[in-house]
Amino acid sequence: MILGRITGSVVSTIHHGIVEGRRLLLAERLDHAGNPTGGYIIALDAIGAGNGETVLILDEGNGARQILGDASAPVRSLVVGIVDDVDLQPS
Amino acid sequence: MILGRITGSVVSTIHHGIVEGRRLLLAERLDHAGNPTGGYIIALDAIGAGNGETVLILDEGNGARQILGDASAPVRSLVVGIVDDVDLQPS
Amino acid sequence: MILGRITGSVVSTIHHGIVEGRRLLLAERLDHAGNPTGGYIIALDAIGAGNGETVLILDEGNGARQILGDASAPVRSLVVGIVDDVDLQPS
Amino acid sequence: MILGRITGSVVSTIHHGIVEGRRLLLAERLDHAGNPTGGYIIALDAIGAGNGETVLILDEGNGARQILGDASAPVRSLVVGIVDDVDLQPS
Amino acid sequence: MILGRITGSVVSTIHHGIVEGRRLLLAERLDHAGNPTGGYIIALDAIGAGNGETVLILDEGNGARQILGDASAPVRSLVVGIVDDVDLQPS
Repeated sequence: MILGRITGSVVSTIHHGIVEGRRLLLAERLDHAGNPTGGYIIALDAIGAGNGETVLILDEGNGARQILGDASAPVRSLVVGIVDDVDLQPS
Repeated sequence: MILGRITGSVVSTIHHGIVEGRRLLLAERLDHAGNPTGGYIIALDAIGAGNGETVLILDEGNGARQILGDASAPVRSLVVGIVDDVDLQPS
Repeated sequence: MILGRITGSVVSTIHHGIVEGRRLLLAERLDHAGNPTGGYIIALDAIGAGNGETVLILDEGNGARQILGDASAPVRSLVVGIVDDVDLQPS
Repeated sequence: MILGRITGSVVSTIHHGIVEGRRLLLAERLDHAGNPTGGYIIALDAIGAGNGETVLILDEGNGARQILGDASAPVRSLVVGIVDDVDLQPS
Repeated sequence: MILGRITGSVVSTIHHGIVEGRRLLLAERLDHAGNPTGGYIIALDAIGAGNGETVLILDEGNGARQILGDASAPVRSLVVGIVDDVDLQPS
């Protein structure tokens, strides 16, 4: 799983049913403390995430297809949860 | 998914039906703002993308095979969409 | 397999049974000598790992699903063992 | 797919039929313009590639097994084509 | 495939039969000339590799499971061969 923050969306025509009905979100990758790393990821939205929200992104195709309930979805990265809290313990 | 821009093509003989009938495109990897990152990717063309176009590339073999409708296609990266717009929100 | 040290946890709602019943752990990646590399990983807990513990993380979805005994678990990274000892040989 | 140039071979005993009958090639990774990147990859030879040749390497296990026609081949990277031409378009 | 040199082992309890009966080896990653890259990998031992030996590591879960003959082995990286020779050609 990867931490990301939604910064926009991508509009593109992909000829596959399950993808057409969902948004392709642009997320900046975050480090463990919630700061941007400079990287980004484009992920399909599974939860209705909004701009600026910190999210959990699953970056594995087979797992993503299981959540979508579609064994043939052409997807690798999926926004699967909104992060409510990151609890950092003193080390 | 990865953002890329088509910069050329690769001519090579690969002995597998579905690959022979499609172009192998050379794409430079783009960052979230559409600027080149210095990296590249070679991807099979699923949509008829042209030189200079900004595209979405799926970098996962099983998903790529689903789009091609060929469970045995030897492919990992596939150009799956032309990007019409990247909508960046102010953060 | 990756060496990590548990530094916290992530609270997020993911709509899939097996994930809801387990903790999402935040681990810093370690090098072979046990020093932090600066990277991190978010992994599902399979063993009840505690804060500060050095663990083995399996970073492969199909293997992770086998350990969980759930072929549809949306997971890629799983904390699979607590490291008792790293035995470095003089080279 | 990755561009590589064959620079040598690796001799090692691996106890699996399909691997024993093929060469393990050492290839330097090339950038889009055909220059070495400093990285390398060890790939099984599917086409009889020779030293110094520029090749296409498929870096995905399931696709590689499809080309080999052996669902149990322990392989991830496979030399699948000799590159005849890289056609770079002015951008 | 990756070139590595065995530098130690990791002791950890993982609750899965095939893993418990094998050693988890710590290997430094080597470049094509056999020099350490600074990275490491933890891999299951399939061949009885000893300390200081240069080995081939397969870094793909499905292929690793095929060699182990266990479709449910929770493994991604496997030491599959001892390297007898790396034959570098002048380029």
